[in-house]
Amino acid sequence: MSEIVKEIAQGAKQSSFILQTTSGSLRNKALAEIANALRNAGKEIAAANREDMDDAAKDGMPEPLVARLLFDEHKLDETLKGIDELVAMPDAVGKVLEERELDSDLLLRKVTCPIGVIGVIFEARPDALVQIASLCIKSANAVILKGGSEAKKTNEILASVIEKAGKAAGLPDGFISLLTTRTETTEMLRCHEYIDLIVPRGSNEFVRYIMDNSQIPVMGHSDGICHVYVDKAADLAKAAHIVYDSKTQYVAACNAAETLLVHADIAAEAFPKIEEELKKKGVLIKAFGDAEKYLASAVPATEEDFKTEYLDMVITAKIVDGEKEAIDHINKYGSHHTDSIISEDKEAIAEFFAGVDSAGVYANCSTRFADGYRYGLGAEVGISTGKLHARGPVGIEGLLTYKYLLTGNGNVVEDYAEGRRSFHFVEH
Amino acid sequence: MSEIVKEIAQGAKQSSFILQTTSGSLRNKALAEIANALRNAGKEIAAANREDMDDAAKDGMPEPLVARLLFDEHKLDETLKGIDELVAMPDAVGKVLEERELDSDLLLRKVTCPIGVIGVIFEARPDALVQIASLCIKSANAVILKGGSEAKKTNEILASVIEKAGKAAGLPDGFISLLTTRTETTEMLRCHEYIDLIVPRGSNEFVRYIMDNSQIPVMGHSDGICHVYVDKAADLAKAAHIVYDSKTQYVAACNAAETLLVHADIAAEAFPKIEEELKKKGVLIKAFGDAEKYLASAVPATEEDFKTEYLDMVITAKIVDGEKEAIDHINKYGSHHTDSIISEDKEAIAEFFAGVDSAGVYANCSTRFADGYRYGLGAEVGISTGKLHARGPVGIEGLLTYKYLLTGNGNVVEDYAEGRRSFHFVEH
Repeated sequence: MSEIVKEIAQGAKQSSFILQTTSGSLRNKALAEIANALRNAGKEIAAANREDMDDAAKDGMPEPLVARLLFDEHKLDETLKGIDELVAMPDAVGKVLEERELDSDLLLRKVTCPIGVIGVIFEARPDALVQIASLCIKSANAVILKGGSEAKKTNEILASVIEKAGKAAGLPDGFISLLTTRTETTEMLRCHEYIDLIVPRGSNEFVRYIMDNSQIPVMGHSDGICHVYVDKAADLAKAAHIVYDSKTQYVAACNAAETLLVHADIAAEAFPKIEEELKKKGVLIKAFGDAEKYLASAVPATEEDFKTEYLDMVITAKIVDGEKEAIDHINKYGSHHTDSIISEDKEAIAEFFAGVDSAGVYANCSTRFADGYRYGLGAEVGISTGKLHARGPVGIEGLLTYKYLLTGNGNVVEDYAEGRRSFHFVEH
Repeated sequence: MSEIVKEIAQGAKQSSFILQTTSGSLRNKALAEIANALRNAGKEIAAANREDMDDAAKDGMPEPLVARLLFDEHKLDETLKGIDELVAMPDAVGKVLEERELDSDLLLRKVTCPIGVIGVIFEARPDALVQIASLCIKSANAVILKGGSEAKKTNEILASVIEKAGKAAGLPDGFISLLTTRTETTEMLRCHEYIDLIVPRGSNEFVRYIMDNSQIPVMGHSDGICHVYVDKAADLAKAAHIVYDSKTQYVAACNAAETLLVHADIAAEAFPKIEEELKKKGVLIKAFGDAEKYLASAVPATEEDFKTEYLDMVITAKIVDGEKEAIDHINKYGSHHTDSIISEDKEAIAEFFAGVDSAGVYANCSTRFADGYRYGLGAEVGISTGKLHARGPVGIEGLLTYKYLLTGNGNVVEDYAEGRRSFHFVEH
């Protein structure tokens, strides 16, 4: 392993030990000064960004990706608003989650604290760098960033401005580091001694690769195979509208629907209504088995389609015999991300809520609501399809853990083990 | 991979989908009937256990381990009391953690639910099987158990009685499975498609091996290198008593202290007092550097001792220049388990609390308090030195995750994205 990445990770770990002792007001001050410094460097940042964009265009990068790369002064301004919002948010570090008296002179407190060192691998979007760095500062974590290489020059100036302003405001050395090559990413994945959590963003294949190739815990989602199930007790107007929105509102999102399941009893009526709605945006329907009978424009689907995240104007359609089959299908083929039932039957909704093993289980609304902002969580760290630590859209609390603080007055276990003293638990 | 373990894991997954829909009262009823069935099978269980113990003695198992293997009717009775307590505990599944109105007709609820399939690998202690199986039933998780091979016959009859009684009470097929060979353990570690969490108990090397050899998240602790730091503002009588208890009250425990750090200013006075106390149980003190000057009975220590979990009547002693050095030492050499400061100085305690990156950070009490029962958490699943999901002693909530339930009335994201509707977040 290259010693450089290991040293960066070690330095981040050292920095995290100091960061965890900083006050919320120091971190807010640092964030405000970072925002100022970025504003002042707007012209140089835009210039670096133009170089990246020119290089990307020369290298034949597709236009939508080049557009995402853009980070002019207008884009910077928008991004800095995010920092202002973070500064205004209450400090989530050091919050007492539980307080319990174990004995008259023995007090237990469960208190939030930063996780330590976060490694973030993100796509070629310079605003992501600013956003992630700010979230880590707010939550008192050290961060190691690896951005898309197409944004290299922009990322370098952004990270350098943030580092300088942050240190001037009192943040410790090593609170932010930037890696630039793919080799460095591979090396970072081996630093499980120093990095506590990896947050990968970007393509599914890449996230899967990281989950499979590191001992460091990963928070993210590798797939988004979301379902809408139209129950026999569905309001079909709502159903058509929700399927349309779940599929078409933003097809590239992980929370877009990929499979439509319709109860057999209403298939003949429901499918044409939904098809009519989906046609408005030219959605290609792939029908499995009998579903084809009711879908004039459909092409045939295979079992493989149930496992496919199209990220496109394509949806699979299948008839199910009842709710149980719908739930089984979702648990078997889905990615445990977000799934919605359309039904006016409260019991059917309750069964769907209990039976579907996904981060988000919805009734009578679009799968597209799965999003930190829409959930009212504030700044979003990402969406997790893992079940441990954080699940679904994750706000800043996903960058926090807790520790137990126990304060005594000379208390020893022997006294309790031998019956001279006894615990009495009182919740405060 | 052997198809048998894969099929067991698949079966457990299927079972978990049904378990998550069961009511708390059904699970309590099953627990009560399992306790009855075990009570009725007491004689056969004890007979199977005698065979295990005879075999173990013949194979030359050390006596303390043979003693842990004992599972007679008296031990069974004690274990069944644990089930009664679990039945009496409120149901932790389906608890609403947050409830937020996103719009007048769009309600978000964050609700606890089981994790799914838990794989538990435990030492040759039959009572652990009963305890773990009960915790999983209470929390609606399916469980795959792998017990120490020395308890094979006892485990087999226990698992078989639990399975039969549980199924008779309405639990689904596959809610419990027992693996018996080491090969099967290796195969289980590869079943990341079906198993959601591994809880390993037993030797540190084994836990480390599992953490290093599975993609399945692991909840546990591989090391317990705990420290007591005696600050210059310490009450030395308390200090001596707490060091004595932390080291000697139960040396085989992960929360026993392995290193004693003493502030230079009080070393001359503190060390002899502590040494006198430790002598009562014949503790061997290994002194690092100058500490030897103040410890009449000590032998020299090396840096390697700072990384050693003795699990024995041995402790390392070191002088530190101040609190900062103590904190740095603990963060560098410790296992982020439990560390205690002895001090009458509130500021020093606050600094120690903020600076030490451990699951338990204590002041003026013994490290041996790190335990689910002593924390008042009810039945203990284990102690985690990981930072994600669960940290420190973990109660039944460590076997739970959450999902977001969103209930609407035809709501689509397009309306919000295009400004026809807007979110208003109201916490309930």
